[in-house]
Amino acid sequence: MKGSQREPSRPAQPGTFPKCEPERSDPQLARLCVDFPVSVVLPAGGTGERTGLHTPKQFCLFMGRPLISYTIQAFERVSWIQNIVVVVAKENIDLMMDIVQRFQHTKVRAVPGGSTRHRSIYNGVLALGEEEEKPTPNVVIIHDAVRPFVEEEFLLRIAVTAKEHGAAGAIRPLVSTVIATTSEGYLAHSLDRAKHRASEMPQGFTYDIICQAYQMCSESDFEFGTECLHLALQYCGTNAKLIEGPPTLWKVTYKRDLAAAESIIKETLSKSACIITGGLTLAASLAASLQKVVGSLDMELDIIPDLKGDNARYLSKKYNFIQISVEPFSPCEVEAIVVALESKNQALLHPVAVIWVYLSTAESSISRRGAETPTLMDLALAAKLHNIFLYGIQIHHSKDSERWERSVLRLAEITSALIQERSPALVGQLLQA
Amino acid sequence: MKGSQREPSRPAQPGTFPKCEPERSDPQLARLCVDFPVSVVLPAGGTGERTGLHTPKQFCLFMGRPLISYTIQAFERVSWIQNIVVVVAKENIDLMMDIVQRFQHTKVRAVPGGSTRHRSIYNGVLALGEEEEKPTPNVVIIHDAVRPFVEEEFLLRIAVTAKEHGAAGAIRPLVSTVIATTSEGYLAHSLDRAKHRASEMPQGFTYDIICQAYQMCSESDFEFGTECLHLALQYCGTNAKLIEGPPTLWKVTYKRDLAAAESIIKETLSKSACIITGGLTLAASLAASLQKVVGSLDMELDIIPDLKGDNARYLSKKYNFIQISVEPFSPCEVEAIVVALESKNQALLHPVAVIWVYLSTAESSISRRGAETPTLMDLALAAKLHNIFLYGIQIHHSKDSERWERSVLRLAEITSALIQERSPALVGQLLQA
Repeated sequence: MKGSQREPSRPAQPGTFPKCEPERSDPQLARLCVDFPVSVVLPAGGTGERTGLHTPKQFCLFMGRPLISYTIQAFERVSWIQNIVVVVAKENIDLMMDIVQRFQHTKVRAVPGGSTRHRSIYNGVLALGEEEEKPTPNVVIIHDAVRPFVEEEFLLRIAVTAKEHGAAGAIRPLVSTVIATTSEGYLAHSLDRAKHRASEMPQGFTYDIICQAYQMCSESDFEFGTECLHLALQYCGTNAKLIEGPPTLWKVTYKRDLAAAESIIKETLSKSACIITGGLTLAASLAASLQKVVGSLDMELDIIPDLKGDNARYLSKKYNFIQISVEPFSPCEVEAIVVALESKNQALLHPVAVIWVYLSTAESSISRRGAETPTLMDLALAAKLHNIFLYGIQIHHSKDSERWERSVLRLAEITSALIQERSPALVGQLLQA
Repeated sequence: MKGSQREPSRPAQPGTFPKCEPERSDPQLARLCVDFPVSVVLPAGGTGERTGLHTPKQFCLFMGRPLISYTIQAFERVSWIQNIVVVVAKENIDLMMDIVQRFQHTKVRAVPGGSTRHRSIYNGVLALGEEEEKPTPNVVIIHDAVRPFVEEEFLLRIAVTAKEHGAAGAIRPLVSTVIATTSEGYLAHSLDRAKHRASEMPQGFTYDIICQAYQMCSESDFEFGTECLHLALQYCGTNAKLIEGPPTLWKVTYKRDLAAAESIIKETLSKSACIITGGLTLAASLAASLQKVVGSLDMELDIIPDLKGDNARYLSKKYNFIQISVEPFSPCEVEAIVVALESKNQALLHPVAVIWVYLSTAESSISRRGAETPTLMDLALAAKLHNIFLYGIQIHHSKDSERWERSVLRLAEITSALIQERSPALVGQLLQA
């Protein structure tokens, strides 16, 4: 969509693993630190009824990766979280273990769920007490597998507040007025919005309180209840402290939410790119022009001559690479980037876009090579197997400055569209700027 | 995303204007008919705070058209709705009139809003009573400008129920548990989900009840209230009848909702395409193969030899056209489609995708033409100004059946991606299948 700006509450760069450093915006928060063991229970037994899909939402693929893996990553990258218990339906345990292995998750254990949400969460809490190599946690964070965009800063607040008050929960303002209905389907009364909130996830509890609440609660609670904060209040007398969370905490519930989640992930991946000039003057000049235009399209460009030495660090920082060449297709250059990305395992969690820009100076188009040279398409199809999407754009150098500016603008638009859309169907194409 | 299926509650084909015909799925509903005047008030004064954008949500562009125009269209296409009053902030009246003119809305009048939501709705209701050429409505439907996917069937239920009960409102199940909070920010208690619902839009009222409710209500109601159903209950003793609506009634509230809305619109536009073979055997055979493959990608293809005679009806039924040629770029064929679409005004409300498929039989690539012949890019840039997106795909005919099948599969994938993404940045490109 047009006219959009960055939302303040967007998730951190995916795939980067921020350390527990005191560089937070809120000075009060900067003083908080988690120096006690924290574990996570992720109930993931949902059947996905409300999306109208056959696949439960948590296993729906977003650019080749199941939603639950994004949620796991959101916790796994937090240094002070020691382990994560994912509770899944018995028949999905193998699928879950495959996901853990394929996406190299390291802090995760999968346990079978019970017949209701509360039984599943309790199974997860019990599993935390049985971990042999890890201490029993002081605080347990409970979250939904289908809320992938939770940020470290908010988890920190939940953990510290739960430690202090026994229980803490995320809330959000109500979007719609809530009404009470008569049994015949008529309006009974409407609730005062100011005094009510939507209870969201994550929630945090001291280990003792969540254990006690589940030990004491009734069969009816297990069967029909949904709210952990309510059990802590009823059985432990603990009034949970409520914390307003950002809108990104929302739960992927309906089919439209799948599109919304994909768009957030894609936008986050498209915030910056790395442009490689080979050190050539003409390429560097094009890179500088591109930087200006693309900047106005809400993407930051770093310009470097190559990916050698210290610059190799970009390989594990960026998800988008633009290689400018003045030679008609030179497979070596592009192949080297693909190989380097593979060696860094950079495309494990997110597809990486590599755009080869051919800056042609003559009037001729690209000459056909012999059959022994791999084409752009050949390379692209091979790279796609490794989750690296390779595209080509040809731009003719023109001495007519007006024409040249138009071409650069088009190059920027195409580059930006390819990066934002990450279309697997368009890999290997050579587009004209 | 992958593994997705059609949601049962998607809006009707956009831009088609279904008549009030008794072919509804619900036999009870089929007997309903609106034979009384119904008008609509659309409050559209929101500032868009919650999306984090500068542009209020109702004016955000979706493929070049403001959201509010989609919502207006949802009402305008219903034959039994006589007129629509859109209530906008005074400073946006001109913008609103521009939108009405540009997208050729015919049932709409814009009136200035008040300082609060209730004052704005009341202004809209008052304006309905002042219409000179139209009878005072029996029923007024109130809806949000930012809920664009409301369907005729649901509007019918609201109108008929409002006529019968005095007031009717859409409800949805609660997604999150609602809790009451203490003034210090602790959990007071949680509400029983079974007895509560989210109150959504549209709502319907008899004209007399909505007028009486607003005439009698207090300054405090005008200032702080949000719920029209509540006023009808309090001042007219009318308990609104509540009707559960589909998930598509949701309100575009956060930035993520913009992506969700765009994806729903794009998916609806991509459900079917028309493929034009020119009557040639080779093209018809490719069309048939494509039909099979694309069918499995959830898109229906109609194959026709040309757009002449009776087939011209496709021009105002489809949003996607695929022209198969065996001649190297023949601007006339493609230009004719573009001209025909323009004459039908088909791209007024939604961008139309035209894909020129060049089925080459020789080994040669496309020969360069003289400067006097327009190129695919020239035509595409001109068509784009009319909201028609033109793309090209070249496919080499191969006698090796395995290679040919691979090419057809790639052609289907690229076609499907171009149609679904409708990227304005990629028009005029000639892609290789």
